[in-house]
Amino acid sequence: MSETQIVEVPLGERSYDIIIGAQALAGAGGEISRRMPGIRCAVVTDETVASFHLETLIHSLDAAGIEAHPLVLKPGEKTKDFDNLMTVVDHVLSCRLERGDAVLALGGGVIGDLAGFAAGIVRRGMRFIQVPTSLLAQVDSSVGGKTGINSRHGKNLVGVFHQPDLVLADTAVLDTLSDREFRAGYAEVAKYGLIDKPEFFAWLERNWRQMFSGGPERVQAIAVSCRAKASVVAADEREGGVRALLNLGHTFGHALEAATEFDSRRLVHGEGVAIGMVLAHRFSAWLNLASYDDADRVERHLKDVGLPTRLSDIEGGLPATDILLEHIAQDKKVKRGKLTFILTRGIGQSFIADDVPGEEVHRFLEETRSS
Amino acid sequence: MSETQIVEVPLGERSYDIIIGAQALAGAGGEISRRMPGIRCAVVTDETVASFHLETLIHSLDAAGIEAHPLVLKPGEKTKDFDNLMTVVDHVLSCRLERGDAVLALGGGVIGDLAGFAAGIVRRGMRFIQVPTSLLAQVDSSVGGKTGINSRHGKNLVGVFHQPDLVLADTAVLDTLSDREFRAGYAEVAKYGLIDKPEFFAWLERNWRQMFSGGPERVQAIAVSCRAKASVVAADEREGGVRALLNLGHTFGHALEAATEFDSRRLVHGEGVAIGMVLAHRFSAWLNLASYDDADRVERHLKDVGLPTRLSDIEGGLPATDILLEHIAQDKKVKRGKLTFILTRGIGQSFIADDVPGEEVHRFLEETRSS
Repeated sequence: MSETQIVEVPLGERSYDIIIGAQALAGAGGEISRRMPGIRCAVVTDETVASFHLETLIHSLDAAGIEAHPLVLKPGEKTKDFDNLMTVVDHVLSCRLERGDAVLALGGGVIGDLAGFAAGIVRRGMRFIQVPTSLLAQVDSSVGGKTGINSRHGKNLVGVFHQPDLVLADTAVLDTLSDREFRAGYAEVAKYGLIDKPEFFAWLERNWRQMFSGGPERVQAIAVSCRAKASVVAADEREGGVRALLNLGHTFGHALEAATEFDSRRLVHGEGVAIGMVLAHRFSAWLNLASYDDADRVERHLKDVGLPTRLSDIEGGLPATDILLEHIAQDKKVKRGKLTFILTRGIGQSFIADDVPGEEVHRFLEETRSS
Repeated sequence: MSETQIVEVPLGERSYDIIIGAQALAGAGGEISRRMPGIRCAVVTDETVASFHLETLIHSLDAAGIEAHPLVLKPGEKTKDFDNLMTVVDHVLSCRLERGDAVLALGGGVIGDLAGFAAGIVRRGMRFIQVPTSLLAQVDSSVGGKTGINSRHGKNLVGVFHQPDLVLADTAVLDTLSDREFRAGYAEVAKYGLIDKPEFFAWLERNWRQMFSGGPERVQAIAVSCRAKASVVAADEREGGVRALLNLGHTFGHALEAATEFDSRRLVHGEGVAIGMVLAHRFSAWLNLASYDDADRVERHLKDVGLPTRLSDIEGGLPATDILLEHIAQDKKVKRGKLTFILTRGIGQSFIADDVPGEEVHRFLEETRSS
């Protein structure tokens, strides 16, 4: 009934497909056994996702004759640590899986990043299958091969690049997300329009309601997003150049996440990105690179959707601008002391600015906060 | 005075040089700052190596203006575990090193594997410099990019491929090794002759004494070994094919190490490889693939050098052949149940045999043990 789209991520011998549709979870076993006959899987998930979807997945794998070994972890960002990495690695080795077998991640970004990291280091690299269950994971972490865990020094500071062999993005499972979680993922969808696809951003302005309610527009928006990220990643797999464009809104966003101590009650990643994207457009206008009209248009759309767009939307207040700037400078995308920002000349016209002076950012933030 | 040789490991954009000579340690700072201006280093080493060489290295780095942050770990195989990996990772992040900075490994295989793994995962891959201080590390782990740690399920089961940016092999530091440790490394040198360089094996038969005493023959033998491994690795970086040839003697050798519970008082890696190489030649002769004369010649040379060559040379006895076979089958080089062995048609004529029946190995070992 429902349309299915396949997006190929073109990375030479590491190329893989993303299958996007409302039946991807139930069809997982058939799809995997057809593509990787004889494979066995360690299935890594968390308690929340397991309660909704683990049975469906295991049933599908069973029916296809695929040996599956589930491991259910605690939900939440804290799971992305060294202890849980060890737990996953030990589980995979205990099941005596070989290099040709797979670690399958059933969950959002946390589970995907953790399980992908384990897949990247057990036997120096096993197969990796992703079944992302959040919108954010479907349009962001399912493309690009970044895996990792957090350290006391910061988020995602430890990890590897390890491409999946297959991604199954079930668009129907997104109905189990809270509105807030769905919206947060949507910020990344809008980001692809803002980076270099003005016509996609305009399409989203017209179609976001249908996308939220789950029609074919949802499949379409996710497919466009994955294709957009895939083309950037294909051009720069190891993040030496253009891949930085994907950080549009993220330098400000990460700083806000850090400033709110990664407390998801106050701010989740996608919300930080939403505010960050509006700030990036306003900062670009402030630097006379873009028009304030475009910044207003970005803000209006994200606000319509229900996302926060201003610093003042964050409950509980923010630390002083000096502290915010310190968080910006600590972001790992800093190159030898210079501040790197993704700026824009207008909607869909973003670019990498390598040497933004810290004082300018400081002045801009001060003015924004007092206005 | 002493000759220096440079071996290039040709891996496209991951190519790097191995500098081999008696002044490599003292010249480290100059060499590194010339090639990677502005770099900072975390120096990972162990207590034993630190007592001999850390001061020389730090002095050299200091003199070249390179910021260096030493971390001294306990010596021994047990250091290759998750806890020490975390310690190294945390040290590197605490020093606020960036992607363009380096982890420098000063030590043998354990330190190289551990520090290389940390370099491969901090910020998803930092620069890595190796200063191998054992003969084994100079001719084996300095080429190929294999890094990793042990797990309770086996050795080297967790790790990544991460190529170094530079290797400084100081041939004079090898004078601080015990005779036994030097000999153990020598087994891997002889291996390169046995794989596909009969003329190098003959050269070693004539020149091994000079190589042991440290003349230009030492630089030459190490350079030939590195070049030999480099050409195999260049043809098969991720170990899908010909790279398996480097396991000549290792399938038997690993099984013997496991059977002696990795107790280095009874058997060290290179000694297991020496016995394993003789067994591989005898097994090939037993299968009518090669002559017993060649097996005798291999044994004679390794024995001259002072290496063990027979199962009966291992003190304390070995478990039953069934158990040995189980260790062989558990080796991670097993492909979906079949036994993979490196066999030979004679000296310098080794090849990969993909489906050696377990019963043949069992019969051969039984006969060998009772003869």
